[in-house]
Amino acid sequence: MHGLMMNYQLTLTSLFERAGRLFPTKEIATKMPDGAMHRYTYADLYARTHRLAHVLKKLGVARGDRVGTLCWNSYRHLELYWATPCSGAVLHTLNLRLTSDQLAYIINHAGDRVIFVDSSLLPLLDPIRDRIPCVERIVVLDGDGPEDYEALVAAAPAAKYPWPELDENEASATCYTSGTTGNPKGVLYSHRAMYLHSMALASVDSFAISERDTLLMVIPMFHANAWGLPHAAVMNGARIVFGGRQIQPRDLAELIQGEGATLTAGVPTLWMGLYALLEQEKYDISSLRTIVAAGSALPRQFVVDFERKHGVRISLAWGMTETTPIATFMQSRSDCEGLPEDEYFDVRSRHGLPVPGVDLRVVDGEGREVANDGIAMGELQVRGPWVTSGYLSDPDNAVGSRKAASFADGWFRTGDVATIDRFGYIQIMDRTKDLVKSGGEWISSVDLENALMGHPKVAEAAVIAVNHPKWMERPLALVAPLERFRDSITKDELIEFLSDKVAKWQLPDDVVFVDAVPKTSVGKFNKRALREKFRDYVLPAGR
Amino acid sequence: MHGLMMNYQLTLTSLFERAGRLFPTKEIATKMPDGAMHRYTYADLYARTHRLAHVLKKLGVARGDRVGTLCWNSYRHLELYWATPCSGAVLHTLNLRLTSDQLAYIINHAGDRVIFVDSSLLPLLDPIRDRIPCVERIVVLDGDGPEDYEALVAAAPAAKYPWPELDENEASATCYTSGTTGNPKGVLYSHRAMYLHSMALASVDSFAISERDTLLMVIPMFHANAWGLPHAAVMNGARIVFGGRQIQPRDLAELIQGEGATLTAGVPTLWMGLYALLEQEKYDISSLRTIVAAGSALPRQFVVDFERKHGVRISLAWGMTETTPIATFMQSRSDCEGLPEDEYFDVRSRHGLPVPGVDLRVVDGEGREVANDGIAMGELQVRGPWVTSGYLSDPDNAVGSRKAASFADGWFRTGDVATIDRFGYIQIMDRTKDLVKSGGEWISSVDLENALMGHPKVAEAAVIAVNHPKWMERPLALVAPLERFRDSITKDELIEFLSDKVAKWQLPDDVVFVDAVPKTSVGKFNKRALREKFRDYVLPAGR
Repeated sequence: MHGLMMNYQLTLTSLFERAGRLFPTKEIATKMPDGAMHRYTYADLYARTHRLAHVLKKLGVARGDRVGTLCWNSYRHLELYWATPCSGAVLHTLNLRLTSDQLAYIINHAGDRVIFVDSSLLPLLDPIRDRIPCVERIVVLDGDGPEDYEALVAAAPAAKYPWPELDENEASATCYTSGTTGNPKGVLYSHRAMYLHSMALASVDSFAISERDTLLMVIPMFHANAWGLPHAAVMNGARIVFGGRQIQPRDLAELIQGEGATLTAGVPTLWMGLYALLEQEKYDISSLRTIVAAGSALPRQFVVDFERKHGVRISLAWGMTETTPIATFMQSRSDCEGLPEDEYFDVRSRHGLPVPGVDLRVVDGEGREVANDGIAMGELQVRGPWVTSGYLSDPDNAVGSRKAASFADGWFRTGDVATIDRFGYIQIMDRTKDLVKSGGEWISSVDLENALMGHPKVAEAAVIAVNHPKWMERPLALVAPLERFRDSITKDELIEFLSDKVAKWQLPDDVVFVDAVPKTSVGKFNKRALREKFRDYVLPAGR
Repeated sequence: MHGLMMNYQLTLTSLFERAGRLFPTKEIATKMPDGAMHRYTYADLYARTHRLAHVLKKLGVARGDRVGTLCWNSYRHLELYWATPCSGAVLHTLNLRLTSDQLAYIINHAGDRVIFVDSSLLPLLDPIRDRIPCVERIVVLDGDGPEDYEALVAAAPAAKYPWPELDENEASATCYTSGTTGNPKGVLYSHRAMYLHSMALASVDSFAISERDTLLMVIPMFHANAWGLPHAAVMNGARIVFGGRQIQPRDLAELIQGEGATLTAGVPTLWMGLYALLEQEKYDISSLRTIVAAGSALPRQFVVDFERKHGVRISLAWGMTETTPIATFMQSRSDCEGLPEDEYFDVRSRHGLPVPGVDLRVVDGEGREVANDGIAMGELQVRGPWVTSGYLSDPDNAVGSRKAASFADGWFRTGDVATIDRFGYIQIMDRTKDLVKSGGEWISSVDLENALMGHPKVAEAAVIAVNHPKWMERPLALVAPLERFRDSITKDELIEFLSDKVAKWQLPDDVVFVDAVPKTSVGKFNKRALREKFRDYVLPAGR
């Protein structure tokens, strides 16, 4: 027996039209390359996005076609975020940190018909223009020619674009995973997934994004849908400030203070940099209610210090390209509020509860759920309406397939190793492949890295497994000291520092000092490169 | 081109399992008829609900079958709220303020197979037992016999009930409209509608219900799904306090103070009564963050006074049985915060913005949207995934039917008359049929009532249209004074009081003093009864 409720499709179009109707006077600001702030309103966004949809049609973009963007964060990129899916096409955000070869692979794999590009990024496309035959048109966002973005938008009809009536399961966007192994894989989002994800970000035990927020948007819009924030912010009428290109700690501090940001989000290195700056110089960041950190581990010390010194809560979140991406969020439970301070911050440094809509489990090698004791580790698996069921053009690795490497019993296998505590909070301990398997025991490289990065002389630390004749694998620490301590830091003081933080058998067998830890295209530690480099490293004898 | 996202159904089952997993230690308290508090945990709710599902199966309840409840608010009713839909059956909450005849009609119309009933309400069923042949079984919630609720639950298997895999469009519950005209009409909710509605109540610009809330639940659970709060509260892990039966202002004050309620919601008369009590006696209600008022109009003065005197925000919401029910919520926008105080409270007394998921328009007689000026009135129409598409066994009045009285172009016609202001806030002015059509102009009876109820000597006021030889209709005010002013209140002082609040031509032509305004089964002013009673009333000459 079916209910008698309207068959109303969950599409981004309805969220966009809501924003245009309710929030015309709200502001969207963008820090431009010359440092000036470009400001316009939701009414401008609304009108220009409708015009842009006319442009897409004129360029021959049809329902289901892929439209690439190779762009920095800006109001124009936001217009593409809405016009593309609402007009029935599929937004393909291209990571500008990829090499030209990698770009050629994913552009061809996705079959992009048009690419919108910032002029400064044209050099990335130039070498591959003749290797991406699917691309019929390249439109420059900030060019001043008659075929560039602004000219096309200006020439488009001013009349509202007649949005097609979409099925909620139609594709809205695609992102490729950064591909630490093998070729990048395409995740294909639906309108339904993005609609529900936007609702989840507005829920009060999640990002709680609201009309009263000023969102400082610094996550690159080419990175996992910018965590869904562009859609959630517009749907709820938040004021938006795009932080511009190549954001440095000083940019963050100036924008938070100058624009009165209440909410911002990004990878941990941003907030570690901001913290270091605030140690040296005075900025008022008291307008912030929350900083969300995700993408890699954040040493506990920063959660403590931001809250104690600056009164700003850092909330960790966790997700993946395959989960649209937000799957968990750290919101303090009422029953954690009375904990002793040390335990409170232990909890606050975890990755939180699954947001409503996401089911989550942590399972051992036999598929049994591990104990909720905050100690037992297992693989984190998730399912839900905004979790991927497979990858573009890869029918073998799909939720229904028996050969699928990424799925088990209807769950997506994240490849992350996690614990789950008595409150239900998960803590990501490592990537499965980054665990150090020492004898029969697992050592979390992330745990060691976080502990090392809590040392006052350390800027960055990465831990990898290297082969060991007796234990199979042992941890090796690569440490980048803060510049002023380059000549004074020693291996012994680091091992000594760790010795009351981890068990003795978990201590790294050696420490190698480096200038910086190599990063992937989305700013994570590139452990694959490190493993490659230190493949034949010989650990000192003794253990 | 479809997205590659999991085909994960939006069912109440997934929300319930989430709560059982994440919040086992959270409390649910119920004020029992003897005044004592019954307390148990989500773990108890979880285990007993699974047992109750076994009971339903044993009673022969199959997928799609209707299960009636004729119950006060309590933890047992909450168990029925979850076990029934999660097991695939349809929860039919019966309004205990209906007459036995009305109950017989809706029980037969819905075809209830089992009815769960509080022993104190058995006398309502006794006279109609032989007129409801569809009902195979009546189970007493608080009886101590072997066939009563507790014995059945105790005898059920302790093993988790194997919930069926439901399609999200399957029916989850039904409520009948109170039927101010004609027979009651059955609205049939789906799992999808209730899931999305629950997500909407958790959004920060709506009820913002969270794990950190203590919800004082006083809306009757037989009234429009108790506004969706039982589902939203459990999904998010809020502490819940059921306020018991026949709630009086003193009960409210004691429970808010004693249990530290942070959120409560109900019809305006509750809060007007609470306000009056707080004028006489001292209670600490500072734990409250929000009182939500809906169901009928709330005089602006109470919004002002609660906020100024008690620091507690009253937020109006609006919805109908046909909208699951929440469709709008009053959340102050950032761009209203700088308004002069008088204008600020004008705004705060409106019914808010549509919650994300609900589309809303206000249209004139020709179907054109009225100006967003806060003055032009029109019929409020809504659509969305939790808006009804029709009524049980009434194919002519459905969204697709050309003969449908309740639908226009895919929109549900609410029968409410509203304005919409420059911020997008709607204000419900009246029911279409309660408007006073004076000459060519409309007079809002609700506006006059609210103004009258702001007079210090007035307890209740209702305004109805009576026939007029020249103007067709003119307003007549029925006023119930506060008891201590019964002998001192005069018509002239009320008209004088109104004269700077409404236009002169809108002033009532006469005032009749009554002991109390008659109410419907859900506590609204029964204007149909008043119109009937004063059908032949002769207004004084002079206009």
